[in-house]
Order: sequence, then C-alpha cells, then structure tokens
Amino acid sequence: MAISTDQRSMGAVAMRWHGDRLELLDQRLLPAGEHWVTAADASAVAQCIADMVVRGAPAIGISAAYGVALAAYNARGNSNWKAAVRLAIDELAQSRPTAVNLFWALQRMEQTFLTCASPGEAVELLAAEAVLIHEEDLAANLAMADHALDVMNPQQAIGVLTHCNTGALATGGYGTALGVIRRLHERQLLDRVYADETRPWLQGSRLTAWELMQDNIPVTLNADGAAAAILASGKVKWVLVGADRITANGDVANKIGTYSLAVLARYHNVGFMVVAPSSTVDMALVSGTEIPIEEREGTEVREIRGIPLAPAGVDVFNPVFDVTPAGLIDAIVTEKGAVRKPDLAGMRALFA
Amino acid sequence: MAISTDQRSMGAVAMRWHGDRLELLDQRLLPAGEHWVTAADASAVAQCIADMVVRGAPAIGISAAYGVALAAYNARGNSNWKAAVRLAIDELAQSRPTAVNLFWALQRMEQTFLTCASPGEAVELLAAEAVLIHEEDLAANLAMADHALDVMNPQQAIGVLTHCNTGALATGGYGTALGVIRRLHERQLLDRVYADETRPWLQGSRLTAWELMQDNIPVTLNADGAAAAILASGKVKWVLVGADRITANGDVANKIGTYSLAVLARYHNVGFMVVAPSSTVDMALVSGTEIPIEEREGTEVREIRGIPLAPAGVDVFNPVFDVTPAGLIDAIVTEKGAVRKPDLAGMRALFA
Repeated sequence: MAISTDQRSMGAVAMRWHGDRLELLDQRLLPAGEHWVTAADASAVAQCIADMVVRGAPAIGISAAYGVALAAYNARGNSNWKAAVRLAIDELAQSRPTAVNLFWALQRMEQTFLTCASPGEAVELLAAEAVLIHEEDLAANLAMADHALDVMNPQQAIGVLTHCNTGALATGGYGTALGVIRRLHERQLLDRVYADETRPWLQGSRLTAWELMQDNIPVTLNADGAAAAILASGKVKWVLVGADRITANGDVANKIGTYSLAVLARYHNVGFMVVAPSSTVDMALVSGTEIPIEEREGTEVREIRGIPLAPAGVDVFNPVFDVTPAGLIDAIVTEKGAVRKPDLAGMRALFA
Repeated sequence: MAISTDQRSMGAVAMRWHGDRLELLDQRLLPAGEHWVTAADASAVAQCIADMVVRGAPAIGISAAYGVALAAYNARGNSNWKAAVRLAIDELAQSRPTAVNLFWALQRMEQTFLTCASPGEAVELLAAEAVLIHEEDLAANLAMADHALDVMNPQQAIGVLTHCNTGALATGGYGTALGVIRRLHERQLLDRVYADETRPWLQGSRLTAWELMQDNIPVTLNADGAAAAILASGKVKWVLVGADRITANGDVANKIGTYSLAVLARYHNVGFMVVAPSSTVDMALVSGTEIPIEEREGTEVREIRGIPLAPAGVDVFNPVFDVTPAGLIDAIVTEKGAVRKPDLAGMRALFA
C-alpha cells in the first residue's frame, strides 16, 4: 500500500499490511531497536493492542480494522466465516477500553461485513475497508494540520510543548498533534518542541523524541514535572496534544498528565489545543465523567524494563488516561475543522 | 550518637558519625539494597553530596558539617590545620548550588572554627557543632510537625500528596513534610499518602515509598503526571512538600515538579504547605528569581541505571528545582512557627 502522496515526511510507519498478515512495529522496544511483530490473525492483533506493541488511538483503530480483515482471510474456506468474523470483532473490542477510535473502526468494519455475501467478498471488501480507514486517517492528519495552523496563526517561529506520542507511530502517518508540529516545521514556524517524557510508558522519550530526531525537528526532552517551569519561562506558545476520546461537550480523555498540562497552560496564558481525527469524537457520551478510564498494572510504575524502581508490592495508582474538561481547551481540531472554546453547541455544529 | 529520644519512629537513618569518618547510606541504590559509603575526609563528603549519595537539603547541610569536622580531624597533626579546614569549607560549598542549608551549615561551622585556638580544639568543637546541627535538625522536624498540624487542624483522617523525599533520609531524622505525615499517622489523622514518583531521580518511588512502607504508613505511588487526576478526585486535602531555599518574600525553590503541584493545588482548592527548617530560609534573597537553579546531566532523563530510554544525544532540559511563588503557598512551616499566606511582612515577622 502506497500511503505517502507527496515529498513531505510522513514520519515513521507503525504498521505494514500484507493481505494475509499485519506487521506491527514493536513500539515497546523503541528506540533501542526496530523489531516487527507479525500478526497473522485477529487474536494476535488484539493481543498486540492489549500489550501496547501498537498504541495511539488512531493506530489502534487502524490495526483493529486490519485484524477484522485478517479474520475474514483466515475464515475464507470456512462455512462458519460469518461467526469467525463476528468473534474477531468482539475480541478486538475487548483489547483496550478508552480510545473510541477502536470501536469506531470496528463499527465501520462491521457495516462493511454486513454487505458481504460470500467469504471471498468478505476477504476483498474488509481488506479494502481497512486500507481505506488507514488512508483516510493519514489524509485527516494532513487536513488537521491545516486547520490547526489557521487557529494558531503564528507570525513567527514559536515553541510548543507536547505530551505522549501523537506522531506517525500513533496514527496512519504524519500524526495528529505531532502532524501539526511537522507542519509548523515545514513552514519554518517552529522554534522548538519540548517533549514530556510521559511516564510511565515514556512515549515522549522513546517515540516522540525518536520521530522528531529522524526528521531533524528540534526537540528538547523533559521530565513531566519540568513542564510547568518551561511554561513559566515563556518559551512555549501552545501545548499540543492528541486525544483518545472526546465527548459531546468537548471534554477530552487523553494520556495521563494531559489534564495537568491543561491547568498549567491556562494558568500561564499558553494556548491548549487538542488535535484528533473525528473518529475520536464520541457524541454518544454527554461528558468526560462517562468515559471508562483504563488502569494498568502497577509494575508499569514500579519498574522500568524489569528494573525495580520502588519497593516490591507498593500500592500504585496507574490510570492510563485523564479527562481534561472542555473549559480548559482553547481548540479541538479535527479534519472537519476546529471547534474553538469547545462546548456542546460548538461540538454539535461540527459533529451532529 | 543517640538521636532517637522517644518511642516514635524517627524513620530511616541517612548518616552515621564515627568521629574519624562519616558513613552515608547510598540513596542512589535504594530500595534495591542498603549500601553504606564511608567518607573519611571532606573531599569524599563533598563528592557524596555532588553525586547524590546523600540528598535532601537538611541532610546535605548536616553532611557538610560533618565534612568540616573530618577536615579538622585529619589536619590535627598539621601545622597548616587552619588552611586545611578553610579549604574543606570552600570545597564543600561547591558541591551543590541550590539548597541554602549547605551554606548555612558551613557558616555555622566556620563561626565555630574561628573560636578554635588549637587543632585539638578544632577537632573537638567542630565535631560537637556538627552533632548539634544534626540534633537540632531532628528537633526542628518534631516542632514543625506540631506547627503543621495546628495549621491543618484536620477533624478526621485525610489524604495528602507529597513530592520527592522529605523524610528521615533527607534530614537528620523524622523528616520535614514527611515528618508531618508521620505525625498525622501517629494521631490516626492520615487516610493515605499519594507519593509522586518524582522523575528523574525517582526519590518518591525509591525513598519515600520505602520509608513509608517501613513504618506501615499507607502509601500509593503515582507517576507525576497522575497528580492532577488525584487532586481532581477530592481524595487529597493537602499537598505537603519540603524546600531547598526560601526567599524573603516566601518564594520557594524545591524539587522540579513542585511548582506544578502548587498551581494544581490552587486550581483544585487543595491546601499547599511547605515544611522546612528555618535554615532553609534565605532572607538575603529578595525573591525566587535570585535563586541559582542547578541543572544536571541530560543522562538522568535519557537513561535509567545505564539503560537508554531515549534516542542517544537527544537534547534534554533537566533542572533539579523550580520556584513556587509565595502567592500559591498556603503556609510555610518551620520550627519557629508557620507563616500563613507568606509574603515579605509575614516572613520578616518570623525570620528577621
């Protein structure tokens, strides 16, 4: 599949589709080495999502779509092919709870599946739909960058701060918040990116710093606790983050630590922008209090790469996401456009 | 030296004084193992401070005092004993730049030194002065806990959140902010301590969690980025932190990430208390902008125990401290009493 459509850098690649298997770059091992995991069936894809071989809300959705396509491929000689595909959809839906892109992608795949009259049609149409989801995500990222720059309208090169990884590795390519950063850099409107290391998974250190250095985009890494001092220094005009789920009123679930940045950005009069495809918007949820927040194993905080950092058995609070209320957000940017000072009316105008 | 004066737990011990040598618990290796480093002269003590074998503003001051005593001991048969002690004071003063307790302790040692007429007197009086500084620090911590509880006046068991390590390991015993937590626990007024892991050095994971578990004080460890979600949950009534330097207007330099917590505490209507001995107060500095902020090697963020977490050579911003403006602080508590809503007038009333 040729995703890249022009000469600009689309960044790294998180996945490769081969029709009979999906290859996923093992993001747990970056930047130490580029190891690819081959998933030959939907269960393997679901396991890769649960284990965070692949992560990032859009990339999770795309991977799950390919997982459904794999289920159809593997069941092509099976009279029970419909049950097999349905089972795969169910299994993939269990892999992670918070990012709504997963459920959105599975719903699209299910709708396509319902039109399939034969196993052969399922193989063909589901693969085509997954590729389309992937291509549309990349196109959405490019559109988001346009809309974001319209909102930011920088008159000179600016500093930005970002959290977690929202780049090519988290998406179908280019990135959401990191796509906006790429665009600023392409236009020579970027002074420097401050990247939160983003404990406990260190997506900032391992993935964002790696992606940005590959594209020679100036990046400075900082401990999450240093973000406030950076904002106080005046070196940053915008905090740019992605999202895992956005509710009807404009509340945003994103990587733990995002909410902290939103409070700090408001306190320091720094802009706070959420960049995500419209597939992240869940108009069925009234507000952020309804978003299920995944909590993961305490070992993610107690250890790094198997090295104990804390006393064995110490109790850990390890939520993967937090919720930023709409009132702290200056703009939510999707491929459909931007919602400034998001609220229910503004969200409905774009996503009803 | 018998520091413990009653049956309550004074917590772990950071140092042991033997007259001819100072033993320091290597805090870099906790909680994996309790390894003691023996410093037999002032240079070795200075190196231990610079390398963070011992850390925590009060513990740094006490260690430096013992370092001066060691210089006198080692120069006891030397006609140039005065020059040797003076050199030691200079060398110890270079070991860390931010915590003022270091300079305060060295000044006290120098004043004692000026009264010494012979090498024998220097050995005796400087050792006695260092022990006194140590004992006074412990006594100050016990007094601070009293004053802090007067300010907090909890009517039932409360949750608190703390950052870095301000316990027995950071002080002469009992702790500053962690001493207040011990006191709450002794009085059955503590529900739970949330401990920021405190990147990059992980003093929260490695030291605070370890100290609290040793004393069966209920502790939950969290990534620094999760503190905002904890404050939003309503489970925490006070954020309790230590200090490395407090200026005349009540601004506070403390571990990087403290300022972030102060902004978050104010936003969530949670109390924010700084607990530190009066030796941390530097009335010679008008405000926090005058405090020299130490920056350390980027490897502290790029690696953990030699394992790379980020691309080699990525630029890192690694300030050890940040400055919290007085306006975000509800109370500064020292052994001399509390300054509520600190400002120049309030600080002068207690510390002029």
